[in-house]
Amino acid sequence: MASHLKSMLLPNGRTELCNSVLPALLDCISDIAKSLRESQHVSQAGTTNAFGDSQLNVDIAAENLIRTALAKCPSVLTASSEEEPVERPASDGRTVDDVSPTSEKYTVAFDPLDGSSIIAPNWTVGTIIGIWDGASAIHQQPSEKQIGAVLGIYGPRTTAIIALRVPGSEPCCLEIGVGGSGTQDHQVIRSNVQLADPPFTTRYFAPANLRAAAESENYMRLITKYMEKKYTLRYSGGLVPDVVHALVKGHGVYLSPVTGASEAKLRRLYELFPIALIVECAGGKAIDPVDGEDILSRPLENCDETAGLVCGTAEEVDIAKSALLHA
Amino acid sequence: MASHLKSMLLPNGRTELCNSVLPALLDCISDIAKSLRESQHVSQAGTTNAFGDSQLNVDIAAENLIRTALAKCPSVLTASSEEEPVERPASDGRTVDDVSPTSEKYTVAFDPLDGSSIIAPNWTVGTIIGIWDGASAIHQQPSEKQIGAVLGIYGPRTTAIIALRVPGSEPCCLEIGVGGSGTQDHQVIRSNVQLADPPFTTRYFAPANLRAAAESENYMRLITKYMEKKYTLRYSGGLVPDVVHALVKGHGVYLSPVTGASEAKLRRLYELFPIALIVECAGGKAIDPVDGEDILSRPLENCDETAGLVCGTAEEVDIAKSALLHA
Repeated sequence: MASHLKSMLLPNGRTELCNSVLPALLDCISDIAKSLRESQHVSQAGTTNAFGDSQLNVDIAAENLIRTALAKCPSVLTASSEEEPVERPASDGRTVDDVSPTSEKYTVAFDPLDGSSIIAPNWTVGTIIGIWDGASAIHQQPSEKQIGAVLGIYGPRTTAIIALRVPGSEPCCLEIGVGGSGTQDHQVIRSNVQLADPPFTTRYFAPANLRAAAESENYMRLITKYMEKKYTLRYSGGLVPDVVHALVKGHGVYLSPVTGASEAKLRRLYELFPIALIVECAGGKAIDPVDGEDILSRPLENCDETAGLVCGTAEEVDIAKSALLHA
Repeated sequence: MASHLKSMLLPNGRTELCNSVLPALLDCISDIAKSLRESQHVSQAGTTNAFGDSQLNVDIAAENLIRTALAKCPSVLTASSEEEPVERPASDGRTVDDVSPTSEKYTVAFDPLDGSSIIAPNWTVGTIIGIWDGASAIHQQPSEKQIGAVLGIYGPRTTAIIALRVPGSEPCCLEIGVGGSGTQDHQVIRSNVQLADPPFTTRYFAPANLRAAAESENYMRLITKYMEKKYTLRYSGGLVPDVVHALVKGHGVYLSPVTGASEAKLRRLYELFPIALIVECAGGKAIDPVDGEDILSRPLENCDETAGLVCGTAEEVDIAKSALLHA
C-alpha cells in the first residue's frame, strides 16, 4: 500500500503524509475494527435499559484510538472530532511553529464512528476522516486545503477508502483491505476507484431522511420517479456504507435533503467534506441540496456547521438537483 | 450459552440438539466469519473482470464449513442447501435407520451465505439455517416439523439469532454474541428477543423488490403511505440483516411482494421457513403476500420452491397484507 501511495506523492514532498499519517490512520481503523468485534454488548443499545452507555463506549474507544495515533504523528498539528468539535493541538504543547522534518503541517478532522443507530443490529458502520493542509480547517477553502480523506468500513471485512488530491499530483481514490495486525497487513484492493460512465445496467438510490418526503413534494416526486424507473434501493442509514456502496458498484445517488420541518443533520467538517472529496476523486459530484452548490465550495465558519447532501454519479446528482430545486 | 438452552430443552430430551447440533452451527458461524474477514478480494466482485469467481469462493467456503460440521453431528441425518438444493445424507453412508444415542433425528436445510450482492461493498451478510425433526423436510408440516432456526450475522461483530419451538417447550428466541475461538466464547446477549407491542416510537420498513412497485399499484400505494406516515427506511438488500434489524430494534416490516413481472425470488426451504420461525418465535408474523397465508402453513413439494414474504411486527404485517391483497 505505502509504496503505491509513495510513488504518487513523494515527488511532491509528502513524506510525512505517506509514511506517518496514512499508515497511522489505517492502523487505527484496524484497531477500531478489533474493538468493535469485541464489543458484543453494544447490541443491548437497542434495548430500553442499556441504551446509550455501551454504545457511547464504542464511540469513545474509537475517538481515543484516533487521537492517540494522531498525537504520535509529528506533522499533525491540529485535531478535532464530531465527538468534540473544537480544534485543538493534536498533542499537548504542539504548536503551529513546530516544524516537521519535511515542513508538512496537517489538520485532521474526524467522525470516529458514524452510524450509531445501526450498531445494535450489527450492520456495517464506518469512520470518516479529513486531512487538511495547514493548522486549521476553519476559513480555509475546502476544495483546495482538504487534501485527503479516509473512510474506515467495518463490516464482514475491514476495508478503507483513501482519496488524495494533493496540489501537483493527479487525484486518486483507492480501496484498501485493512489487515488485522498492523501496517504490513494492508493491501490495495483497487488502485483506481471510479464511478462508472453511462450507460448503467443498474441504477442505485439511497434516500436518507426519507421522512422529509412527507413535507417536500419535490422529494416525494423524485422518489416516486426512482421507483417508476426501477432504480434499485439500497439504504442502510449509515453514511459510510451508503456512499461506499455506490463507489464499489460504480453507480449510485445518495440523497439527504433539507426541508422546513427536517433540519440539516450532516456535519460539514466531519462528514460532508471528506465524503465530498472521496466522491469527487472517484469522478462523482457532491452538492448541497439547498442551493445546488458543490459541498467543497464554501469555507467553514465554525466546526459544527451542518448541511444536507446529494452525492454520487454526476448524471444522477444533476437529475436530483433539478428535481429538488424545482420551484 | 449451552447451559441456557439446555435448561430449556433438556427436559424434552433434546440432548443432541443442545450439545451437538447448535454448538456445531455456532462454531461454523464463527469459522465463516473468519473466512469472510480474510477474503479481502471478494470486493473485486463489483468490478467487471473478476465478477463471480471470488464471490463464489466465499459461498463455497461457507457451504463446506457447514457440511463438514453437520457430518460430525450423529443426529443430523439429512442436509441440503441453497447451493445444492437436494436432500442427501449429512454424512456418507448415514441412513434413516441409524439411531443417535438419544433417538434424535434431524434434517438441516441452509443458505450458507445470503446477500451476495452486498458482499463487495462490505455490508453485513448472513447465514440462514433451519432444523427439522425427522429425515426430510419435504411433505412435512413446516409449522410443526421445523423445530429450530439459526441466523449468522457477519457485520462489525459476529452474532447469531437462535429460535426454537420444540413440542412441549415454550418457544424461545435468543441473540448470541459469537466468539472468535470456539464454543466457549459464545455468550447470550439477549435471552428473549421479542418484537415490541404498540405504541411504537419509530416504525421501520424494509421494502425489497421495490422495482415491483412500478407494476403494482398496491405496492406503490403502500410505500407512499409509509413515506407519508413517516416510517423510517432501513433496507440493506440482505434478508438476514434486514430481518435482524427489526428484531433488534423491536419493530419493523419487511416486504418482498410478487407481481406479474417480478417473480418470487426467496427460497421457501432455505430462506422463508427459518426466517418465519424466528419472526414467529419473536412474537411477529410471516406471511405469503400472494394469498396472505402463514409462510409455515403449507408443506414443501420440492427443495427449490420460491415465494414472496411479508414479515415482522404483527400489526404491520396485517396492514401490509390488506394493502397488497386489495383488489
